Amino acid sequence: MGYTLTTTVQRPYEETVEAVREALGDQGFGVLTEIDIKATLKKKLDVDVAPQIILGACRPPLAHQALQADPSIGALLPCNVVVRSQDDGTTIVEAVDPEKMLGMSEQGAALTDVACDAKERLQKALAAVSG
Amino acid sequence: MGYTLTTTVQRPYEETVEAVREALGDQGFGVLTEIDIKATLKKKLDVDVAPQIILGACRPPLAHQALQADPSIGALLPCNVVVRSQDDGTTIVEAVDPEKMLGMSEQGAALTDVACDAKERLQKALAAVSG
Repeated sequence: MGYTLTTTVQRPYEETVEAVREALGDQGFGVLTEIDIKATLKKKLDVDVAPQIILGACRPPLAHQALQADPSIGALLPCNVVVRSQDDGTTIVEAVDPEKMLGMSEQGAALTDVACDAKERLQKALAAVSG
Repeated sequence: MGYTLTTTVQRPYEETVEAVREALGDQGFGVLTEIDIKATLKKKLDVDVAPQIILGACRPPLAHQALQADPSIGALLPCNVVVRSQDDGTTIVEAVDPEKMLGMSEQGAALTDVACDAKERLQKALAAVSG
């Protein structure tokens, strides 16, 4: 029902961030953007939140295919993967579900293959991190 | 029906990118991420697409409010604003519609104020760029 693919891992935050980077690379995603949410909110608002980072993952062949089907799709790219620390020492890894995301497009039917491919790769990356 | 707020401006691409940055700043958004789609696809796939860039806009107070309502919301942040060049010399500016985006959350009701505020600011930024 949700809009993310999620796994909870029994590993500390920093180690999980590195494992996610590696798993995304193994699945053909480059990390094109990074937002350290904790650092940003501390700097801009002086508030403290749990360590969390947004990694913007992109697999160029999929992005290209998606743009050909829907020239506006850049607004929904890249595929965000969030890593966030929990108080109990576990870490949550949450990737946006490409099916839900690309399903927002009126060209949804033409994007089914791209969405399925991206989703499968993200699921494998999450499995590798939790395994 | 779409998932974006869109305007087409009679200005060249580079000039529009700068105008969008300025207009977003005027509305309290910082640009935290940038993806030059044309450069990325050229480098990774050696394909040529029209100049286009994804600017990841974030207004920290809104992001903080959203995270408090739904800890998973990082997967839907930041608010993408895409600027893309058209063959006819005009430039399209497309921001993801925060109402559509945050509407994906099961905490949608708690995010209504955030979504409306973000949408109003993006609409003002787009109006400033086209005006």
